[in-house]
Amino acid sequence: MLKRYLLAPGPTPVPPEALLAMAMPIIHHRSPDFLPVLDSAKKGLQWLCQTKNDVLILCSTGTGGMVGAVNNFFSPGDKALVVNAGNFGERWTKICKAYNLSVEEIKIDWGRAVNPEDVDSALKKDPSIKGVFVQASETSTGVYHDIKTLASIVRKYENTILVVDAISALVAHDLRMDEWGIDVLIGGSQKGLMLPPGLAFVGVSDKAWKFADKAKSPKFYFNFKKEREALAKNQTSFTSPVTLIIGLNESLKILRTEGLENAFNRHERLSRATREAIKALGLDMFTKESPSYAVTAINAPAGFDGQEIYKNLRVKYGITAAGGQGQAKGKIFRIAHLGYAGTFDVITAIAAVEMVLKGMGHPLKLGTGVAVAQELLMV
Amino acid sequence: MLKRYLLAPGPTPVPPEALLAMAMPIIHHRSPDFLPVLDSAKKGLQWLCQTKNDVLILCSTGTGGMVGAVNNFFSPGDKALVVNAGNFGERWTKICKAYNLSVEEIKIDWGRAVNPEDVDSALKKDPSIKGVFVQASETSTGVYHDIKTLASIVRKYENTILVVDAISALVAHDLRMDEWGIDVLIGGSQKGLMLPPGLAFVGVSDKAWKFADKAKSPKFYFNFKKEREALAKNQTSFTSPVTLIIGLNESLKILRTEGLENAFNRHERLSRATREAIKALGLDMFTKESPSYAVTAINAPAGFDGQEIYKNLRVKYGITAAGGQGQAKGKIFRIAHLGYAGTFDVITAIAAVEMVLKGMGHPLKLGTGVAVAQELLMV
Repeated sequence: MLKRYLLAPGPTPVPPEALLAMAMPIIHHRSPDFLPVLDSAKKGLQWLCQTKNDVLILCSTGTGGMVGAVNNFFSPGDKALVVNAGNFGERWTKICKAYNLSVEEIKIDWGRAVNPEDVDSALKKDPSIKGVFVQASETSTGVYHDIKTLASIVRKYENTILVVDAISALVAHDLRMDEWGIDVLIGGSQKGLMLPPGLAFVGVSDKAWKFADKAKSPKFYFNFKKEREALAKNQTSFTSPVTLIIGLNESLKILRTEGLENAFNRHERLSRATREAIKALGLDMFTKESPSYAVTAINAPAGFDGQEIYKNLRVKYGITAAGGQGQAKGKIFRIAHLGYAGTFDVITAIAAVEMVLKGMGHPLKLGTGVAVAQELLMV
Repeated sequence: MLKRYLLAPGPTPVPPEALLAMAMPIIHHRSPDFLPVLDSAKKGLQWLCQTKNDVLILCSTGTGGMVGAVNNFFSPGDKALVVNAGNFGERWTKICKAYNLSVEEIKIDWGRAVNPEDVDSALKKDPSIKGVFVQASETSTGVYHDIKTLASIVRKYENTILVVDAISALVAHDLRMDEWGIDVLIGGSQKGLMLPPGLAFVGVSDKAWKFADKAKSPKFYFNFKKEREALAKNQTSFTSPVTLIIGLNESLKILRTEGLENAFNRHERLSRATREAIKALGLDMFTKESPSYAVTAINAPAGFDGQEIYKNLRVKYGITAAGGQGQAKGKIFRIAHLGYAGTFDVITAIAAVEMVLKGMGHPLKLGTGVAVAQELLMV
């Protein structure tokens, strides 16, 4: 009997309250039953994204929100500046190219964050760049890009909008959409919102809505203007994923009780304890600067395969964490502390990593990392 | 947001498969739907209790099974020998007295196990003693009584049966009902069987059924002969708790997949890791000998209140373990590793105990106990 633990950077564990609500019988998305449900979700998402504007709810994974952000605000031939610092930065480039945008990349070594001045220089050099695309938390490398500073730069350029993939950052990091001037903010259900996969969220600034008026990219499913019209009537354009939206209201209720600042602090605290515990074991962070609070990316020790560590955690101890993606595959492993996560998820993760590494022949002393995490997580 | 953990010696966490099955719509207990359900539960319980005889299923807590064991096999005035080594031994005395049995006690210091020779001497001295009453695992003190030896003694006396409260021991300890000659074996749903409270199980030997023919204690609800008749038709006497019996089949399925011996070994392993970790912290076991695999009873360090430790675990860290009962209240705290429990339940418990004690001013070094548990639980 192997108890299972989910410590991956999405999907993340779903709290019992949300599981229970989602087990209720289906209601109809065009019936009066659903109107207050969507109204509540709508208001909750505005609160979470710290915006006065509507946050669209799409029935798709987070990537659907990314695709929609490209084809609703841009036209073929438009210039895009992509911060490519990992697997998901790479995805921005692929989506932009799929819609025939002209892509310029700021390529960053995996494990490092963008220097916002480089974005400023690129925009100064070419103010015809229409969109800056970036991740808040680059899940593949465990890096957080400085969205506040990036927003303060992009808002100086009236013909440019900032498009932020906040899929793994939402709930983990403070992202002040209106105050900072984020133009497009994309979230997903299966991360900090601790729901099953299946919903994307897109916050849109007034500046971005003006871009939407001129955008000529082909679109049908991810049509943000239509979604905005539907949302005004507490509906979604197509069949609403009622179950997930009911679950969303439960997650939002938990988060409202906790408070936004407490939620951010919790993720910061759990991620810091994880990092310090890992360092105490003599392991290196793959993330060289600006660590994400959502996921910690750790270098496999010399002579150890990151995928083997991932596999042993899963097979021997029942813990589904994550290995590496793309160029980092085999070199790293990753532990999330995202969503419905607390002190003993970190303790469990660190204890298991110690046991796995020791089992693979690493000379570490058991309990070394755990003790550091305990110290930092005492209340 | 405080994640909750249940590490009490009952109720214990319920596995998702059982929760899910119990969330299904109710079926009717006298309909054909229910017959295969009860048939499957009946066979599973025989397997679990290692007996060819029927194991009765009562809609009650474990105490209901204890009461039934007194009023179905004995008459007012019958002599009972009670092994009283804790709170639940005490309960045997109370129930026997409530039904006007004549009680002789073997009183044992809390934390110690009965010496089977003392039972032999008492029976030798007075072979008119009709029943020997004992706990397999005395939950209040964390002691396991040597049921195998006790059974080998009692079976020598043809006018005496051995009645074993195995409520917290079932699934945690190997209890060979037929092979050893246990006459009455009582279990409950909310312990090793990892279900909600609400079911008691009673296995009955051929020898005990003969006692039932002569027993004159008043009874109506816990009428074992009627239950046996009903069970032969895959029914229970009164309204069957269908939900719990459906859940029972799920738990039994998990245990059959694990295998009986593996289940016993798992409990032994988790309890040993807990004890060794606690000792490494310099704490004393409350249990002086023959530790139960279901629950570990630990002395609060000098100057610390056991109930405060229990309370801090719960309030600060979301962990519901147990304090002390009766004369042990305030002096001890208890951690269970019963039912749906694995490696990281022990790690969580030990890490939290360390954090609580350190927070209360104890000079222990964080991670000391965890490291010992990790070492013992590595695979």
